[in-house]
Amino acid sequence: MRFTSETSSEGVREQLFTVDAVPGVLWTPEGATGTRPLILLGHGGGQHKQAPGMVFRARRLVGECGFAVAAVDVPGHGDRPTDERYDRIASDNQARVAAGEEMAPLIAAFQALVARQTVPEWRAVLDALQELAHVGAGPVGYWGVSLGCGLGVPFVAAEPRVRAAVLGLGGASASTEAAARITVPVQFLVQWHDERVPRAESLALFDAIAATEKTLHANPGKHGEIPAFELDEHLRFYVRHLG
Amino acid sequence: MRFTSETSSEGVREQLFTVDAVPGVLWTPEGATGTRPLILLGHGGGQHKQAPGMVFRARRLVGECGFAVAAVDVPGHGDRPTDERYDRIASDNQARVAAGEEMAPLIAAFQALVARQTVPEWRAVLDALQELAHVGAGPVGYWGVSLGCGLGVPFVAAEPRVRAAVLGLGGASASTEAAARITVPVQFLVQWHDERVPRAESLALFDAIAATEKTLHANPGKHGEIPAFELDEHLRFYVRHLG
Repeated sequence: MRFTSETSSEGVREQLFTVDAVPGVLWTPEGATGTRPLILLGHGGGQHKQAPGMVFRARRLVGECGFAVAAVDVPGHGDRPTDERYDRIASDNQARVAAGEEMAPLIAAFQALVARQTVPEWRAVLDALQELAHVGAGPVGYWGVSLGCGLGVPFVAAEPRVRAAVLGLGGASASTEAAARITVPVQFLVQWHDERVPRAESLALFDAIAATEKTLHANPGKHGEIPAFELDEHLRFYVRHLG
Repeated sequence: MRFTSETSSEGVREQLFTVDAVPGVLWTPEGATGTRPLILLGHGGGQHKQAPGMVFRARRLVGECGFAVAAVDVPGHGDRPTDERYDRIASDNQARVAAGEEMAPLIAAFQALVARQTVPEWRAVLDALQELAHVGAGPVGYWGVSLGCGLGVPFVAAEPRVRAAVLGLGGASASTEAAARITVPVQFLVQWHDERVPRAESLALFDAIAATEKTLHANPGKHGEIPAFELDEHLRFYVRHLG
């Protein structure tokens, strides 16, 4: 793990780092020492580790809960080089959708492919973060919707250190088998008029999650229109399970 | 409005009353004066205005939010005389279910019939409560699941003083038209393995509610197994919209 920059503002310390070739960011309370809960944030498609929504969520989790929060760039996003193989598949998929194919199964298959790379990457980043004195080996939470759900479901299923997860805006096609291995508490977001993920697919993914404590929160609106009050719910959810 | 008894314990004043022939109960903070938000609780089938769950919810709403809370007995329940007409329909329905008919549409039709009586009753009770100095004409919320949803949907649709409602464990069959007239914020509960209300019926009722701010909370478990943490959500929901 190599730190490349550090800044602080309004009580939040932000450190950029790399673990192998994976660029990441760690937010912690300024001056914090000792072990604390860690939330890993997975960003959406076309976004990156420091997209405005990511920073906003991180600052609230650090400021209001005293947690550590970290995010990394998904392959082909943010500070990572473009990946020819993924780009080729994405272009192919665009052409297939233009030709009338359904979008959801194509996206799901693509995310399942990328997850084969990101699951081990994220586990390595988690190993490194837990070595830090101001993070430590405390309870871990995961937050990710859309692409962050497609990559998050296999990660949460594979990683026993994750003890609570917020997921959603994702469908069942590629994730059912991994979802059936998730037994930690889950808060699952559905946008009732999601133009990208068919409602039945979302409900099927919620259904497939094996956790006995899982809550689906559905709100009206499109894929990108999660209401602001849901973030309050996520904070309380993490405090209840990790805090 | 006639008060028939009054007790106080642990900071909560409990007054029994009748409005015409309708017996009710009002909970307020001990020593409270002045206008405050009022939550009307609708009880479930076979329960009554002071069933343990009703008292538990009322005490938390009074104690933690400073609200007034009231409930009345539905016809044929609690301190009300049995109603031969309703009893006959209920027995008929039991026989029809035993003979293989689907339960959900029968229940829904029955609740729609009872609502023709309870909507004007509840509005009269609300009129009387808002005349009291320690309640006043503040914002009103409604809470009701199962029977409390079947009777609550037409009430909330008809009563403009209700500004936020928790509903759920109910299906669309009888309520779609009334649900389409509900425009206030709604928190809607679904039990994912509800043995009484088919999941598709629940989702259809949520879908039919016209409110732009409505959130569906679905949890695993049967009809009677709403997890305890949902009550925390209801309190925050009412504080956000009425508090």
